[in-house]
Amino acid sequence: MRDFSKNHEWLSINTATVRRQWPLDRIIDECARRNIRAISPWRDQVAAVGLDRIAAQLKATGIGLSGYCRGGFFPAADAAGLKAALEDNRRAVDEACTVNAPCLVLVVGSLPGALEGKPLHHDMTRVRAEVRDGIAATLEYARSVGMPLAIEPLHPMQAAERACINTLEQALDVCDALDPQHSGALGVAVDMYHVWWDPKLEQQIARAGKKRLLAFHVCDWLIPTRDLVNDRGMMGDGVIELRKARGWMEAAGFAGYAEVEIFSEYWWGQPGEVVLDTCVEKHRRVV
Amino acid sequence: MRDFSKNHEWLSINTATVRRQWPLDRIIDECARRNIRAISPWRDQVAAVGLDRIAAQLKATGIGLSGYCRGGFFPAADAAGLKAALEDNRRAVDEACTVNAPCLVLVVGSLPGALEGKPLHHDMTRVRAEVRDGIAATLEYARSVGMPLAIEPLHPMQAAERACINTLEQALDVCDALDPQHSGALGVAVDMYHVWWDPKLEQQIARAGKKRLLAFHVCDWLIPTRDLVNDRGMMGDGVIELRKARGWMEAAGFAGYAEVEIFSEYWWGQPGEVVLDTCVEKHRRVV
Repeated sequence: MRDFSKNHEWLSINTATVRRQWPLDRIIDECARRNIRAISPWRDQVAAVGLDRIAAQLKATGIGLSGYCRGGFFPAADAAGLKAALEDNRRAVDEACTVNAPCLVLVVGSLPGALEGKPLHHDMTRVRAEVRDGIAATLEYARSVGMPLAIEPLHPMQAAERACINTLEQALDVCDALDPQHSGALGVAVDMYHVWWDPKLEQQIARAGKKRLLAFHVCDWLIPTRDLVNDRGMMGDGVIELRKARGWMEAAGFAGYAEVEIFSEYWWGQPGEVVLDTCVEKHRRVV
Repeated sequence: MRDFSKNHEWLSINTATVRRQWPLDRIIDECARRNIRAISPWRDQVAAVGLDRIAAQLKATGIGLSGYCRGGFFPAADAAGLKAALEDNRRAVDEACTVNAPCLVLVVGSLPGALEGKPLHHDMTRVRAEVRDGIAATLEYARSVGMPLAIEPLHPMQAAERACINTLEQALDVCDALDPQHSGALGVAVDMYHVWWDPKLEQQIARAGKKRLLAFHVCDWLIPTRDLVNDRGMMGDGVIELRKARGWMEAAGFAGYAEVEIFSEYWWGQPGEVVLDTCVEKHRRVV
Protein backbone atom coordinates (compact mmCIF):
# COMPACT_ATOMS: atom_id res chain seq x y z
CA MET A 1 0.00 0.00 0.00
CA ARG A 2 1.30 3.43 -0.90
CA ASP A 3 2.57 5.67 1.87
CA PHE A 4 0.65 8.94 1.69
CA SER A 5 2.23 10.44 4.79
CA LYS A 6 5.36 11.82 3.11
CA ASN A 7 3.81 14.00 0.41
CA HIS A 8 0.55 14.57 -1.41
CA GLU A 9 1.42 13.45 -4.89
CA TRP A 10 -1.74 11.29 -5.02
CA LEU A 11 -4.10 13.99 -3.80
CA SER A 12 -6.72 15.34 -6.18
CA ILE A 13 -9.22 18.07 -5.44
CA ASN A 14 -12.74 17.76 -6.72
CA THR A 15 -13.40 21.38 -7.47
CA ALA A 16 -16.90 21.35 -5.99
CA THR A 17 -15.08 21.37 -2.65
CA VAL A 18 -14.27 25.06 -3.04
CA ARG A 19 -16.90 26.06 -5.59
CA ARG A 20 -18.39 28.80 -3.42
CA GLN A 21 -15.03 30.39 -2.72
CA TRP A 22 -13.45 30.63 -6.15
CA PRO A 23 -14.00 30.28 -9.90
CA LEU A 24 -12.22 27.37 -11.52
CA ASP A 25 -9.23 29.29 -12.90
CA ARG A 26 -8.43 30.52 -9.41
CA ILE A 27 -8.89 27.00 -8.01
CA ILE A 28 -6.37 25.68 -10.51
CA ASP A 29 -3.87 28.38 -9.55
CA GLU A 30 -4.35 27.68 -5.84
CA CYS A 31 -3.84 23.97 -6.44
CA ALA A 32 -0.71 24.61 -8.50
CA ARG A 33 0.66 26.82 -5.70
CA ARG A 34 0.31 23.87 -3.30
CA ASN A 35 1.79 21.28 -5.65
CA ILE A 36 -1.55 19.54 -5.90
CA ARG A 37 -1.13 17.53 -9.07
CA ALA A 38 -4.74 16.80 -10.02
CA ILE A 39 -8.28 18.08 -9.90
CA SER A 40 -11.71 16.88 -10.93
CA PRO A 41 -13.72 19.81 -12.27
CA TRP A 42 -17.45 20.19 -12.80
CA ARG A 43 -18.91 21.11 -16.16
CA ASP A 44 -20.62 24.27 -14.93
CA GLN A 45 -17.35 25.48 -13.38
CA VAL A 46 -15.55 24.81 -16.64
CA ALA A 47 -18.23 26.55 -18.68
CA ALA A 48 -18.14 29.62 -16.44
CA VAL A 49 -14.50 30.24 -17.36
CA GLY A 50 -14.47 28.66 -20.81
CA LEU A 51 -13.50 25.16 -21.87
CA ASP A 52 -10.53 26.15 -24.03
CA ARG A 53 -9.17 28.53 -21.42
CA ILE A 54 -9.32 25.81 -18.77
CA ALA A 55 -7.69 23.27 -21.10
CA ALA A 56 -4.86 25.74 -21.77
CA GLN A 57 -4.46 26.56 -18.08
CA LEU A 58 -4.26 22.88 -17.13
CA LYS A 59 -1.58 22.41 -19.74
CA ALA A 60 0.35 25.47 -18.57
CA THR A 61 0.25 24.48 -14.89
CA GLY A 62 0.86 20.78 -15.52
CA ILE A 63 -2.21 19.89 -13.47
CA GLY A 64 -3.91 16.68 -14.53
CA LEU A 65 -7.40 15.34 -13.97
CA SER A 66 -8.67 12.46 -11.83
CA GLY A 67 -12.08 12.62 -13.48
CA TYR A 68 -14.60 14.93 -15.09
CA CYS A 69 -17.96 15.69 -13.43
CA ARG A 70 -20.36 14.70 -14.73
CA GLY A 71 -22.57 12.91 -17.19
CA GLY A 72 -25.70 10.94 -16.44
CA PHE A 73 -29.23 11.96 -15.45
CA PHE A 74 -30.64 9.73 -18.15
CA PRO A 75 -34.30 9.20 -17.15
CA ALA A 76 -36.45 11.90 -18.68
CA ALA A 77 -40.06 12.98 -18.84
CA ASP A 78 -40.48 12.08 -22.50
CA ALA A 79 -38.70 11.17 -25.73
CA ALA A 80 -37.56 14.74 -26.32
CA GLY A 81 -36.09 14.85 -22.83
CA LEU A 82 -34.28 11.58 -23.37
CA LYS A 83 -32.86 12.80 -26.67
CA ALA A 84 -31.62 15.98 -24.98
CA ALA A 85 -30.06 13.95 -22.15
CA LEU A 86 -28.21 11.71 -24.57
CA GLU A 87 -26.95 14.68 -26.57
CA ASP A 88 -25.82 16.38 -23.40
CA ASN A 89 -23.91 13.25 -22.40
CA ARG A 90 -22.13 13.24 -25.76
CA ARG A 91 -21.09 16.83 -25.15
CA ALA A 92 -19.85 15.84 -21.69
CA VAL A 93 -17.75 13.10 -23.28
CA ASP A 94 -16.31 15.60 -25.76
CA GLU A 95 -15.46 18.07 -23.00
CA ALA A 96 -13.80 15.30 -21.01
CA CYS A 97 -11.64 14.59 -24.04
CA THR A 98 -10.73 18.25 -24.43
CA VAL A 99 -9.48 18.50 -20.84
CA ASN A 100 -7.78 15.13 -21.09
CA ALA A 101 -9.76 13.48 -18.30
CA PRO A 102 -9.10 9.83 -17.44
CA CYS A 103 -12.85 9.22 -17.17
CA LEU A 104 -16.24 10.88 -17.27
CA VAL A 105 -18.08 10.30 -13.99
CA LEU A 106 -21.76 9.35 -14.34
CA VAL A 107 -24.36 10.29 -11.77
CA VAL A 108 -27.01 8.30 -13.51
CA GLY A 109 -30.22 10.03 -12.42
CA SER A 110 -33.46 8.60 -11.11
CA LEU A 111 -37.16 9.52 -11.02
CA PRO A 112 -37.65 12.34 -13.55
CA GLY A 113 -38.73 15.55 -11.83
CA ALA A 114 -37.71 14.34 -8.37
CA LEU A 115 -34.76 16.69 -8.12
CA GLU A 116 -37.21 19.55 -8.63
CA GLY A 117 -39.49 18.09 -5.96
CA LYS A 118 -42.11 16.76 -8.40
CA PRO A 119 -41.43 13.17 -9.45
CA LEU A 120 -43.46 12.30 -12.54
CA HIS A 121 -43.72 8.67 -11.49
CA HIS A 122 -42.34 6.32 -8.82
CA ASP A 123 -41.22 3.35 -10.88
CA MET A 124 -37.65 2.51 -9.88
CA THR A 125 -37.60 -0.57 -12.11
CA ARG A 126 -38.36 1.61 -15.09
CA VAL A 127 -35.71 4.25 -14.38
CA ARG A 128 -33.13 1.55 -13.77
CA ALA A 129 -33.85 0.15 -17.23
CA GLU A 130 -33.69 3.65 -18.73
CA VAL A 131 -30.37 4.28 -17.02
CA ARG A 132 -28.95 1.09 -18.41
CA ASP A 133 -30.06 2.06 -21.92
CA GLY A 134 -28.69 5.57 -21.49
CA ILE A 135 -25.31 4.29 -20.36
CA ALA A 136 -25.27 1.84 -23.28
CA ALA A 137 -25.93 4.63 -25.79
CA THR A 138 -23.34 6.95 -24.25
CA LEU A 139 -20.84 4.12 -24.00
CA GLU A 140 -21.03 3.50 -27.71
CA TYR A 141 -19.99 7.08 -28.39
CA ALA A 142 -17.47 7.23 -25.53
CA ARG A 143 -15.74 4.11 -26.80
CA SER A 144 -15.40 5.66 -30.24
CA VAL A 145 -13.47 8.60 -28.80
CA GLY A 146 -11.64 6.62 -26.12
CA MET A 147 -13.22 8.17 -23.02
CA PRO A 148 -13.92 5.70 -20.17
CA LEU A 149 -17.20 6.08 -18.29
CA ALA A 150 -17.24 5.71 -14.50
CA ILE A 151 -20.60 4.85 -12.94
CA GLU A 152 -20.80 6.38 -9.47
CA PRO A 153 -23.16 4.56 -7.12
CA LEU A 154 -24.81 7.15 -4.88
CA HIS A 155 -25.87 6.68 -1.28
CA PRO A 156 -29.35 5.11 -0.98
CA MET A 157 -30.60 8.35 0.59
CA GLN A 158 -30.15 9.86 -2.93
CA ALA A 159 -32.03 7.06 -4.68
CA ALA A 160 -35.12 9.06 -5.62
CA GLU A 161 -33.53 12.30 -6.79
CA ARG A 162 -30.01 11.71 -8.10
CA ALA A 163 -29.13 8.10 -8.81
CA CYS A 164 -31.02 4.84 -8.95
CA ILE A 165 -27.70 2.98 -8.85
CA ASN A 166 -26.98 2.76 -5.14
CA THR A 167 -24.44 0.02 -4.51
CA LEU A 168 -21.16 -0.97 -6.03
CA GLU A 169 -22.62 -4.39 -6.77
CA GLN A 170 -25.43 -2.84 -8.78
CA ALA A 171 -22.99 -0.65 -10.73
CA LEU A 172 -20.78 -3.63 -11.49
CA ASP A 173 -23.79 -5.63 -12.66
CA VAL A 174 -24.35 -2.88 -15.24
CA CYS A 175 -20.66 -3.04 -16.20
CA ASP A 176 -20.97 -6.81 -16.65
CA ALA A 177 -24.02 -6.36 -18.86
CA LEU A 178 -22.64 -3.58 -21.06
CA ASP A 179 -18.94 -4.38 -21.11
CA PRO A 180 -18.61 -8.10 -20.42
CA GLN A 181 -15.13 -8.11 -21.92
CA HIS A 182 -13.82 -5.78 -19.16
CA SER A 183 -12.38 -3.55 -21.85
CA GLY A 184 -11.75 -0.61 -19.54
CA ALA A 185 -14.32 1.51 -21.36
CA LEU A 186 -16.79 1.20 -18.47
CA GLY A 187 -16.07 1.12 -14.76
CA VAL A 188 -16.96 2.69 -11.44
CA ALA A 189 -16.15 5.70 -9.31
CA VAL A 190 -15.91 4.56 -5.69
CA ASP A 191 -16.97 7.50 -3.55
CA MET A 192 -16.54 6.44 0.05
CA TYR A 193 -19.28 8.79 1.25
CA HIS A 194 -21.80 6.81 -0.77
CA VAL A 195 -20.57 3.27 -0.18
CA TRP A 196 -18.81 3.21 3.21
CA TRP A 197 -21.78 1.54 4.95
CA ASP A 198 -21.99 -1.38 2.49
CA PRO A 199 -21.21 -4.78 4.08
CA LYS A 200 -20.22 -6.04 0.63
CA LEU A 201 -17.82 -3.19 -0.11
CA GLU A 202 -14.54 -5.08 0.21
CA GLN A 203 -15.89 -7.99 -1.82
CA GLN A 204 -17.23 -5.74 -4.58
CA ILE A 205 -14.04 -3.67 -4.82
CA ALA A 206 -12.17 -6.95 -5.35
CA ARG A 207 -14.75 -7.98 -7.93
CA ALA A 208 -14.34 -4.70 -9.81
CA GLY A 209 -10.61 -5.13 -10.20
CA LYS A 210 -8.06 -2.70 -11.58
CA LYS A 211 -9.69 -2.21 -14.97
CA ARG A 212 -12.99 -1.04 -13.52
CA LEU A 213 -11.75 0.99 -10.55
CA LEU A 214 -11.60 4.31 -12.35
CA ALA A 215 -11.82 6.76 -9.44
CA PHE A 216 -11.64 6.90 -5.65
CA HIS A 217 -13.39 9.75 -3.82
CA VAL A 218 -12.90 10.59 -0.18
CA CYS A 219 -14.47 12.78 2.49
CA ASP A 220 -16.16 11.65 5.71
CA TRP A 221 -19.53 10.74 7.21
CA LEU A 222 -20.32 13.04 10.12
CA ILE A 223 -22.15 12.10 13.29
CA PRO A 224 -24.76 13.39 13.34
CA THR A 225 -25.34 14.18 9.67
CA ARG A 226 -27.71 17.15 9.45
CA ASP A 227 -28.42 17.32 5.73
CA LEU A 228 -28.80 14.65 3.09
CA VAL A 229 -26.71 16.48 0.50
CA ASN A 230 -24.46 19.21 1.88
CA ASP A 231 -23.17 17.99 5.24
CA ARG A 232 -20.15 15.95 4.24
CA GLY A 233 -17.16 15.98 6.52
CA MET A 234 -13.43 16.54 6.08
CA MET A 235 -11.44 13.32 6.15
CA GLY A 236 -10.89 12.31 9.76
CA ASP A 237 -13.88 14.20 11.13
CA GLY A 238 -16.29 11.26 10.72
CA VAL A 239 -16.51 7.51 10.91
CA ILE A 240 -15.38 6.25 7.50
CA GLU A 241 -12.38 3.93 7.65
CA LEU A 242 -10.66 5.59 4.71
CA ARG A 243 -7.27 3.95 5.01
CA LYS A 244 -8.77 0.48 5.29
CA ALA A 245 -10.84 1.12 2.16
CA ARG A 246 -7.85 2.51 0.28
CA GLY A 247 -6.09 -0.72 1.17
CA TRP A 248 -8.91 -2.68 -0.45
CA MET A 249 -8.70 -0.45 -3.54
CA GLU A 250 -4.97 -0.87 -3.86
CA ALA A 251 -5.14 -4.61 -3.23
CA ALA A 252 -7.48 -4.74 -6.23
CA GLY A 253 -4.91 -2.85 -8.34
CA PHE A 254 -6.03 0.77 -8.05
CA ALA A 255 -3.06 3.13 -8.15
CA GLY A 256 -4.66 6.50 -8.88
CA TYR A 257 -5.57 9.62 -6.97
CA ALA A 258 -7.55 9.98 -3.78
CA GLU A 259 -9.96 12.70 -4.86
CA VAL A 260 -11.37 14.92 -2.13
CA GLU A 261 -15.00 15.80 -2.76
CA ILE A 262 -16.73 17.66 0.05
CA PHE A 263 -20.17 19.21 -0.30
CA SER A 264 -20.51 21.11 2.94
CA GLU A 265 -22.11 24.34 4.03
CA TYR A 266 -19.45 24.47 6.74
CA TRP A 267 -16.42 24.09 4.46
CA TRP A 268 -17.93 26.33 1.80
CA GLY A 269 -18.01 28.97 4.50
CA GLN A 270 -14.26 28.73 5.22
CA PRO A 271 -11.53 30.54 3.27
CA GLY A 272 -10.53 28.45 0.26
CA GLU A 273 -6.89 28.51 1.37
CA VAL A 274 -7.83 26.90 4.68
CA VAL A 275 -9.88 24.23 2.93
CA LEU A 276 -7.08 23.26 0.54
CA ASP A 277 -4.41 23.32 3.26
CA THR A 278 -6.63 21.11 5.42
CA CYS A 279 -7.18 18.70 2.53
CA VAL A 280 -3.41 18.37 2.07
CA GLU A 281 -2.84 17.73 5.76
CA LYS A 282 -5.70 15.24 6.16
CA HIS A 283 -4.72 13.46 2.98
CA ARG A 284 -1.36 12.72 4.54
CA ARG A 285 -2.61 11.86 8.01
CA VAL A 286 -5.93 10.14 7.45
CA VAL A 287 -6.29 8.86 3.88
CA MET B 1 -53.12 -10.37 -3.15
CA ARG B 2 -55.42 -9.21 -0.40
CA ASP B 3 -57.82 -6.37 -1.12
CA PHE B 4 -57.20 -3.65 1.48
CA SER B 5 -59.67 -1.19 -0.02
CA LYS B 6 -62.79 -2.53 1.67
CA ASN B 7 -61.74 -2.36 5.30
CA HIS B 8 -58.70 -2.03 7.51
CA GLU B 9 -58.59 -5.40 9.17
CA TRP B 10 -54.87 -5.73 8.30
CA LEU B 11 -53.85 -2.31 9.55
CA SER B 12 -51.59 -2.08 12.58
CA ILE B 13 -50.38 1.11 14.21
CA ASN B 14 -46.84 1.33 15.46
CA THR B 15 -47.45 3.42 18.53
CA ALA B 16 -44.41 5.66 17.94
CA THR B 17 -46.58 7.24 15.23
CA VAL B 18 -48.63 9.09 17.86
CA ARG B 19 -46.20 9.00 20.77
CA ARG B 20 -46.14 12.78 21.24
CA GLN B 21 -49.91 13.06 21.29
CA TRP B 22 -50.94 10.35 23.74
CA PRO B 23 -49.77 7.81 26.31
CA LEU B 24 -50.11 4.19 25.29
CA ASP B 25 -53.35 3.45 27.15
CA ARG B 26 -55.05 6.29 25.30
CA ILE B 27 -53.55 5.11 22.00
CA ILE B 28 -55.02 1.66 22.57
CA ASP B 29 -58.45 3.14 23.31
CA GLU B 30 -58.28 5.35 20.21
CA CYS B 31 -57.33 2.35 18.08
CA ALA B 32 -60.15 0.24 19.56
CA ARG B 33 -62.61 3.04 18.80
CA ARG B 34 -61.58 2.86 15.13
CA ASN B 35 -61.66 -0.93 14.89
CA ILE B 36 -57.91 -1.02 14.41
CA ARG B 37 -57.10 -4.59 15.33
CA ALA B 38 -53.39 -4.40 16.07
CA ILE B 39 -50.61 -2.20 17.35
CA SER B 40 -46.86 -2.44 17.80
CA PRO B 41 -45.89 -0.69 21.03
CA TRP B 42 -42.50 0.56 22.21
CA ARG B 43 -40.99 -0.55 25.49
CA ASP B 44 -40.76 2.94 26.95
CA GLN B 45 -44.41 3.59 26.16
CA VAL B 46 -45.37 0.32 27.84
CA ALA B 47 -43.22 1.07 30.87
CA ALA B 48 -44.76 4.54 31.26
CA VAL B 49 -48.20 3.01 31.79
CA GLY B 50 -47.15 -0.33 33.27
CA LEU B 51 -46.64 -3.69 31.58
CA ASP B 52 -49.42 -5.56 33.38
CA ARG B 53 -51.90 -2.76 32.86
CA ILE B 54 -51.15 -2.70 29.13
CA ALA B 55 -51.41 -6.50 28.91
CA ALA B 56 -54.79 -6.36 30.60
CA GLN B 57 -56.00 -3.51 28.40
CA LEU B 58 -54.99 -5.36 25.25
CA LYS B 59 -56.93 -8.38 26.43
CA ALA B 60 -59.97 -6.30 27.33
CA THR B 61 -60.05 -4.45 24.00
CA GLY B 62 -59.17 -7.48 21.91
CA ILE B 63 -56.33 -5.62 20.26
CA GLY B 64 -53.43 -7.78 19.14
CA LEU B 65 -49.82 -7.03 18.36
CA SER B 66 -47.92 -7.03 15.08
CA GLY B 67 -44.60 -6.78 16.88
CA TYR B 68 -42.89 -5.43 19.97
CA CYS B 69 -40.32 -2.60 19.77
CA ARG B 70 -37.55 -3.24 20.40
CA GLY B 71 -34.51 -5.25 21.30
CA GLY B 72 -31.01 -4.91 19.90
CA PHE B 73 -28.29 -2.29 20.38
CA PHE B 74 -25.79 -5.02 21.10
CA PRO B 75 -22.38 -3.38 20.52
CA ALA B 76 -21.15 -1.86 23.77
CA ALA B 77 -18.19 0.04 25.14
CA ASP B 78 -16.97 -2.83 27.29
CA ALA B 79 -17.80 -6.22 28.77
CA ALA B 80 -20.07 -4.70 31.41
CA GLY B 81 -21.95 -2.83 28.70
CA LEU B 82 -22.35 -5.98 26.66
CA LYS B 83 -23.64 -7.90 29.67
CA ALA B 84 -26.17 -5.14 30.37
CA ALA B 85 -27.26 -5.14 26.71
CA LEU B 86 -27.82 -8.90 26.72
CA GLU B 87 -29.77 -8.75 29.99
CA ASP B 88 -31.88 -5.94 28.63
CA ASN B 89 -32.63 -8.01 25.54
CA ARG B 90 -33.79 -10.90 27.73
CA ARG B 91 -36.13 -8.52 29.51
CA ALA B 92 -37.42 -7.32 26.15
CA VAL B 93 -38.13 -10.93 25.19
CA ASP B 94 -39.98 -11.47 28.46
CA GLU B 95 -42.07 -8.34 27.96
CA ALA B 96 -42.89 -9.40 24.40
CA CYS B 97 -44.17 -12.69 25.84
CA THR B 98 -46.28 -10.90 28.43
CA VAL B 99 -48.05 -8.79 25.80
CA ASN B 100 -48.35 -11.78 23.47
CA ALA B 101 -46.33 -10.27 20.63
CA PRO B 102 -45.74 -12.32 17.47
CA CYS B 103 -42.11 -11.16 17.43
CA LEU B 104 -39.58 -8.92 19.10
CA VAL B 105 -38.15 -6.43 16.59
CA LEU B 106 -34.38 -5.96 16.75
CA VAL B 107 -32.71 -2.69 15.87
CA VAL B 108 -29.28 -4.18 16.20
CA GLY B 109 -27.11 -1.17 17.03
CA SER B 110 -23.79 -0.05 15.59
CA LEU B 111 -20.75 1.94 16.69
CA PRO B 112 -20.95 2.28 20.48
CA GLY B 113 -21.37 5.91 21.51
CA ALA B 114 -22.37 7.06 18.03
CA LEU B 115 -25.98 7.67 18.98
CA GLU B 116 -24.68 10.10 21.60
CA GLY B 117 -22.44 11.74 19.01
CA LYS B 118 -19.20 10.20 20.30
CA PRO B 119 -18.37 6.91 18.59
CA LEU B 120 -15.73 5.02 20.57
CA HIS B 121 -14.32 3.46 17.41
CA HIS B 122 -15.14 3.20 13.70
CA ASP B 123 -14.79 -0.50 13.05
CA MET B 124 -17.92 -1.68 11.25
CA THR B 125 -16.54 -5.20 10.80
CA ARG B 126 -16.19 -5.48 14.56
CA VAL B 127 -19.68 -4.24 15.41
CA ARG B 128 -21.17 -6.53 12.79
CA ALA B 129 -19.50 -9.49 14.48
CA GLU B 130 -20.69 -8.26 17.89
CA VAL B 131 -24.22 -7.91 16.57
CA ARG B 132 -24.16 -11.45 15.25
CA ASP B 133 -22.99 -12.74 18.62
CA GLY B 134 -25.58 -10.66 20.45
CA ILE B 135 -28.39 -11.97 18.29
CA ALA B 136 -27.11 -15.53 18.79
CA ALA B 137 -27.15 -15.14 22.57
CA THR B 138 -30.60 -13.55 22.61
CA LEU B 139 -31.92 -16.13 20.18
CA GLU B 140 -30.98 -18.95 22.50
CA TYR B 141 -33.13 -17.45 25.22
CA ALA B 142 -35.91 -16.35 22.87
CA ARG B 143 -36.18 -19.87 21.46
CA SER B 144 -36.56 -21.27 24.96
CA VAL B 145 -39.62 -19.10 25.59
CA GLY B 146 -41.00 -19.26 22.05
CA MET B 147 -40.55 -15.62 21.05
CA PRO B 148 -39.41 -15.08 17.42
CA LEU B 149 -36.82 -12.37 16.79
CA ALA B 150 -37.19 -10.07 13.78
CA ILE B 151 -34.02 -8.37 12.54
CA GLU B 152 -34.89 -5.00 11.07
CA PRO B 153 -32.40 -3.76 8.47
CA LEU B 154 -32.15 0.01 8.81
CA HIS B 155 -31.51 2.49 6.02
CA PRO B 156 -27.80 2.93 5.26
CA MET B 157 -28.04 6.54 6.45
CA GLN B 158 -28.51 5.01 9.95
CA ALA B 159 -25.50 2.70 9.65
CA ALA B 160 -23.24 4.50 12.13
CA GLU B 161 -25.70 5.26 14.90
CA ARG B 162 -28.53 2.74 14.96
CA ALA B 163 -27.94 -0.41 12.94
CA CYS B 164 -24.99 -1.94 11.14
CA ILE B 165 -27.40 -4.29 9.35
CA ASN B 166 -28.54 -2.23 6.39
CA THR B 167 -29.96 -4.51 3.73
CA LEU B 168 -32.41 -7.36 3.71
CA GLU B 169 -29.72 -9.55 2.16
CA GLN B 170 -27.38 -8.87 5.08
CA ALA B 171 -30.15 -9.61 7.61
CA LEU B 172 -30.98 -12.87 5.85
CA ASP B 173 -27.32 -13.87 5.82
CA VAL B 174 -27.43 -13.59 9.62
CA CYS B 175 -30.62 -15.66 9.67
CA ASP B 176 -28.90 -18.32 7.54
CA ALA B 177 -25.94 -18.38 9.89
CA LEU B 178 -27.90 -18.54 13.15
CA ASP B 179 -31.00 -20.42 12.13
CA PRO B 180 -30.07 -22.51 9.08
CA GLN B 181 -33.04 -24.77 9.67
CA HIS B 182 -35.50 -21.90 9.01
CA SER B 183 -37.24 -22.77 12.25
CA GLY B 184 -39.21 -19.54 12.42
CA ALA B 185 -37.36 -18.43 15.56
CA LEU B 186 -35.40 -15.81 13.60
CA GLY B 187 -36.57 -13.65 10.73
CA VAL B 188 -36.81 -10.10 9.48
CA ALA B 189 -38.95 -7.01 9.82
CA VAL B 190 -39.29 -5.42 6.38
CA ASP B 191 -39.70 -1.70 6.94
CA MET B 192 -40.23 -0.15 3.53
CA TYR B 193 -38.73 3.17 4.61
CA HIS B 194 -35.41 1.45 5.13
CA VAL B 195 -35.33 -0.91 2.15
CA TRP B 196 -37.43 0.66 -0.61
CA TRP B 197 -34.35 1.79 -2.57
CA ASP B 198 -32.73 -1.65 -2.70
CA PRO B 199 -32.45 -3.08 -6.22
CA LYS B 200 -32.41 -6.57 -4.70
CA LEU B 201 -35.54 -6.07 -2.60
CA GLU B 202 -37.91 -8.28 -4.58
CA GLN B 203 -35.32 -11.03 -4.83
CA GLN B 204 -34.51 -10.93 -1.12
CA ILE B 205 -38.16 -10.90 -0.03
CA ALA B 206 -38.61 -14.06 -2.09
CA ARG B 207 -35.48 -15.52 -0.54
CA ALA B 208 -36.79 -14.78 2.98
CA GLY B 209 -40.01 -16.66 2.43
CA LYS B 210 -43.03 -16.94 4.67
CA LYS B 211 -41.20 -18.28 7.73
CA ARG B 212 -38.81 -15.36 7.93
CA LEU B 213 -41.11 -12.50 6.93
CA LEU B 214 -42.19 -11.60 10.45
CA ALA B 215 -43.29 -7.99 9.98
CA PHE B 216 -44.08 -5.43 7.28
CA HIS B 217 -43.78 -1.73 8.10
CA VAL B 218 -45.05 1.08 5.92
CA CYS B 219 -44.80 4.85 5.67
CA ASP B 220 -43.30 6.88 2.79
CA TRP B 221 -40.08 8.51 1.58
CA LEU B 222 -40.63 12.23 1.11
CA ILE B 223 -39.06 14.40 -1.58
CA PRO B 224 -37.12 16.22 -0.36
CA THR B 225 -36.34 14.49 2.93
CA ARG B 226 -35.20 17.13 5.41
CA ASP B 227 -34.06 15.04 8.35
CA LEU B 228 -32.35 11.66 8.55
CA VAL B 229 -34.58 10.37 11.36
CA ASN B 230 -37.82 12.26 11.85
CA ASP B 231 -39.07 13.23 8.39
CA ARG B 232 -40.96 10.15 7.30
CA GLY B 233 -44.06 10.60 5.23
CA MET B 234 -47.63 9.33 5.37
CA MET B 235 -48.30 6.54 2.88
CA GLY B 236 -48.98 8.09 -0.52
CA ASP B 237 -47.10 11.33 0.20
CA GLY B 238 -43.76 10.02 -1.10
CA VAL B 239 -42.24 7.77 -3.72
CA ILE B 240 -42.32 4.27 -2.22
CA GLU B 241 -44.25 1.77 -4.31
CA LEU B 242 -46.02 0.27 -1.31
CA ARG B 243 -48.57 -1.83 -3.12
CA LYS B 244 -45.99 -3.36 -5.42
CA ALA B 245 -43.85 -4.28 -2.41
CA ARG B 246 -46.84 -5.71 -0.55
CA GLY B 247 -47.42 -7.86 -3.62
CA TRP B 248 -43.88 -9.20 -3.29
CA MET B 249 -44.41 -9.87 0.42
CA GLU B 250 -47.66 -11.72 -0.18
CA ALA B 251 -46.24 -13.68 -3.12
CA ALA B 252 -43.60 -14.90 -0.65
CA GLY B 253 -46.32 -16.00 1.76
CA PHE B 254 -46.66 -13.06 4.12
CA ALA B 255 -50.24 -12.68 5.33
CA GLY B 256 -49.87 -10.38 8.34
CA TYR B 257 -50.45 -6.75 9.17
CA ALA B 258 -49.22 -3.66 7.36
CA GLU B 259 -47.84 -1.74 10.32
CA VAL B 260 -47.74 2.04 10.01
CA GLU B 261 -44.62 3.51 11.60
CA ILE B 262 -44.12 7.23 11.02
CA PHE B 263 -41.46 9.25 12.81
CA SER B 264 -42.31 12.77 11.76
CA GLU B 265 -42.16 16.18 13.35
CA TYR B 266 -45.06 17.10 11.06
CA TRP B 267 -47.37 14.24 12.03
CA TRP B 268 -46.40 14.45 15.70
CA GLY B 269 -47.70 18.03 15.50
CA GLN B 270 -51.15 16.99 14.27
CA PRO B 271 -54.04 15.88 16.49
CA GLY B 272 -53.76 12.14 17.16
CA GLU B 273 -57.30 11.60 15.86
CA VAL B 274 -56.32 13.11 12.50
CA VAL B 275 -53.21 10.93 12.29
CA LEU B 276 -55.10 7.70 12.98
CA ASP B 277 -57.97 8.58 10.65
CA THR B 278 -55.46 9.39 7.91
CA CYS B 279 -53.65 6.08 8.51
CA VAL B 280 -56.92 4.21 8.08
CA GLU B 281 -57.77 6.05 4.86
CA LYS B 282 -54.30 5.73 3.33
CA HIS B 283 -54.08 2.08 4.33
CA ARG B 284 -57.13 1.41 2.21
CA ARG B 285 -56.18 3.62 -0.73
CA VAL B 286 -52.41 3.33 -0.99
CA VAL B 287 -51.10 0.25 0.83
